[in-house]
Amino acid sequence: MTETITKPAKLTVPPRTIMTPGPVEVDPRVLRALSLPILGQFDPSFTNIMNENMTMLRQVFQTQNHWAYPIDGTSRAGIEALIAALIEPGDKMLVPIYGRFGDLFVEIGERYGAEIHTLDSEWGTVFDQEAIIAEIKRIHPKIVTLVHGETSTGRMQPLDKIGSYCREEDVLLVVDCVATFCGADIRPDEWCIDALIGGAQKCLSIPSGITPITYNERVEHIILKRKKVERGIATAEERKRSTGLPIRSNYFDLGQLQDYWSERRLNHHTEATSMNYALHQGLELVLEEGLDNRFARHKLNEKALMAGILAMGLELFGDPSCKMPTVTCVRVPEGINADQVRRVLLEHFRIEIAGSFGALQGKIWRIGTMGYGCRQDNVLAVLAGLEASLIRCGAVVRRGEGLQAAIDVYDAAD
Amino acid sequence: MTETITKPAKLTVPPRTIMTPGPVEVDPRVLRALSLPILGQFDPSFTNIMNENMTMLRQVFQTQNHWAYPIDGTSRAGIEALIAALIEPGDKMLVPIYGRFGDLFVEIGERYGAEIHTLDSEWGTVFDQEAIIAEIKRIHPKIVTLVHGETSTGRMQPLDKIGSYCREEDVLLVVDCVATFCGADIRPDEWCIDALIGGAQKCLSIPSGITPITYNERVEHIILKRKKVERGIATAEERKRSTGLPIRSNYFDLGQLQDYWSERRLNHHTEATSMNYALHQGLELVLEEGLDNRFARHKLNEKALMAGILAMGLELFGDPSCKMPTVTCVRVPEGINADQVRRVLLEHFRIEIAGSFGALQGKIWRIGTMGYGCRQDNVLAVLAGLEASLIRCGAVVRRGEGLQAAIDVYDAAD
Repeated sequence: MTETITKPAKLTVPPRTIMTPGPVEVDPRVLRALSLPILGQFDPSFTNIMNENMTMLRQVFQTQNHWAYPIDGTSRAGIEALIAALIEPGDKMLVPIYGRFGDLFVEIGERYGAEIHTLDSEWGTVFDQEAIIAEIKRIHPKIVTLVHGETSTGRMQPLDKIGSYCREEDVLLVVDCVATFCGADIRPDEWCIDALIGGAQKCLSIPSGITPITYNERVEHIILKRKKVERGIATAEERKRSTGLPIRSNYFDLGQLQDYWSERRLNHHTEATSMNYALHQGLELVLEEGLDNRFARHKLNEKALMAGILAMGLELFGDPSCKMPTVTCVRVPEGINADQVRRVLLEHFRIEIAGSFGALQGKIWRIGTMGYGCRQDNVLAVLAGLEASLIRCGAVVRRGEGLQAAIDVYDAAD
Repeated sequence: MTETITKPAKLTVPPRTIMTPGPVEVDPRVLRALSLPILGQFDPSFTNIMNENMTMLRQVFQTQNHWAYPIDGTSRAGIEALIAALIEPGDKMLVPIYGRFGDLFVEIGERYGAEIHTLDSEWGTVFDQEAIIAEIKRIHPKIVTLVHGETSTGRMQPLDKIGSYCREEDVLLVVDCVATFCGADIRPDEWCIDALIGGAQKCLSIPSGITPITYNERVEHIILKRKKVERGIATAEERKRSTGLPIRSNYFDLGQLQDYWSERRLNHHTEATSMNYALHQGLELVLEEGLDNRFARHKLNEKALMAGILAMGLELFGDPSCKMPTVTCVRVPEGINADQVRRVLLEHFRIEIAGSFGALQGKIWRIGTMGYGCRQDNVLAVLAGLEASLIRCGAVVRRGEGLQAAIDVYDAAD
């Protein structure tokens, strides 16, 4: 072989303060867990880690569901796995949309042949739950999908009433809580939510690439009806057994994933070793802090950030009554180039904040206060950096006021 | 909230020598890369890492293809992504099967509506390329899928002749080289292979959970015809544009993934940060060693392992003319319980070897010599441990001969 000798690139990772809606900074203890040696997928020490991850996921999801495990893929892999399990071609799916990630449910549902019905709410608002319930009554879909925290607009949809209505009408409720999982309260059992998709790289603060899901017996019932054991490892009887319409994806076949995550340990994929370590350590840290404390920490840092932004003379975007505690959307002042400010902030301060999508592009900045990054030092750093970057880009702000207002919030909380 | 106070489980990872066909040990430099801090997905420092990963993947795949990037999922996610891109319902797919992972192509192809034609070869053998070519002539499928290295049986399919015939007949050739990527020579461009799926947790020796793929313009052409930009971020014109039958999966939509991995950087999922660091560092190490040296290292350790196994009085499984250099299958001696031996080896020596699937379960052990784990100390450790465990379980072996024979091989190579 004649091989071209090329000097391989060296991996370079500069320091950053990440204040976006994800991926966010990861606790050094999680980074350390990632660097532990590999274990075989059927090594009892590894299957023990898998079992512990299931137990801890149940606690963090605040559910009694048996099934709580991760999908080896990013958040939308978790969403797709649940849609693939629940939708057969022609099934009706109601998708209330109040931002970009509502659209994602449409996108995925269409691929699996759903008959999609949408309900729209202006970006920056959420739905009155009664409006959704009325639409469920009118359409009678098989499933309703909702985004709990819509990072594109920074809004959080109340959903304590919709599930019980769904239960009565035999409709399934699937909730994307990617951006609120471990950052804001959500009660699957109390609120009658049938399936949830949590996030990794947001308030749980582990790297992107693994996605916790949970679902109840109503969802499992559908999965079992569609179950198909893999040809290469099925018993003779299993090969013959007739089944319902199989799930259209093998990678996302929750029937096969259940077998792998159960005591049967029937081989499917090779579970992502290091990412399961990160998940384990991340969940440990959440349980050590306690969910109540963690939610309160997110509220406090949000409060300080908002106070600082307003005191600086900037305006917040969106209906304040439904603001997400983990994302704060700031209006870009008239005449200011949103991306230029973000560039100055990144180049000089090494701080990253986010823009937004679609009609909001260039109109708002989105600042995340999530998980490990949701800390006083980070909130003060982003306020200081944003003020200086705005001045640098020609904006008029109330100099020095932002930090004082934020510190006042922290002092009052002590 | 009334929270149950439960002491979270502590993450425990015991030391292991992993001599299975994957997941295998990871170089400490890769483990260290995994523990680097997070970067935002659109941070120029991170998109630079993505670009470098593409460049290094092209080199390691030994291809001029533009498209070479990872799928955020385990190996079968890479396989599914290519099948999803290429198969529309009713398309003919020819699947020659000589082990479990041929069956996996059937499994995935069926899910995407392919009309599947299989060709079978006894487990432990491979196909004469002419037999496959004759079947292509008979069936004229849209795609032919082949496994390069079949870990379930330890065989490697020659495939230097099939691709050029496919090219003439306008058939696409897709090859699963999960178990040989970075461990045995494969020439996509020379051998006219249109798409390949490489492995992470095998000879590249990074953790499971990310999967390198590459494909040429013939595959890209089909992907572009089916392209659909996501509703939530499409321009008005893109929303209107009519397209071919969209790819059935959003997560595996290679058209959208191309946009994300191109300069357009159109948001799809949030790329797996830490796993991309691992990929970068893993590829650096492969290029530093050089592919030729790496393949030679795999051959040498295989030779020593085989010599040791035979000298001990054990027998190898399968046709030796098509043995994979990275997996060695050993017949379980009559009257010996295969799993008991594996248990003794794991408990006393902390060494892991694998069993097999289907009809071979309990009949053979599979010993991997892959990537970072493919080393003299590991080969000698597994021979020593296997001999002792066999004796412990009542087998008669030629005591002490295995290690001497293996060391002879290493001495002769110096």
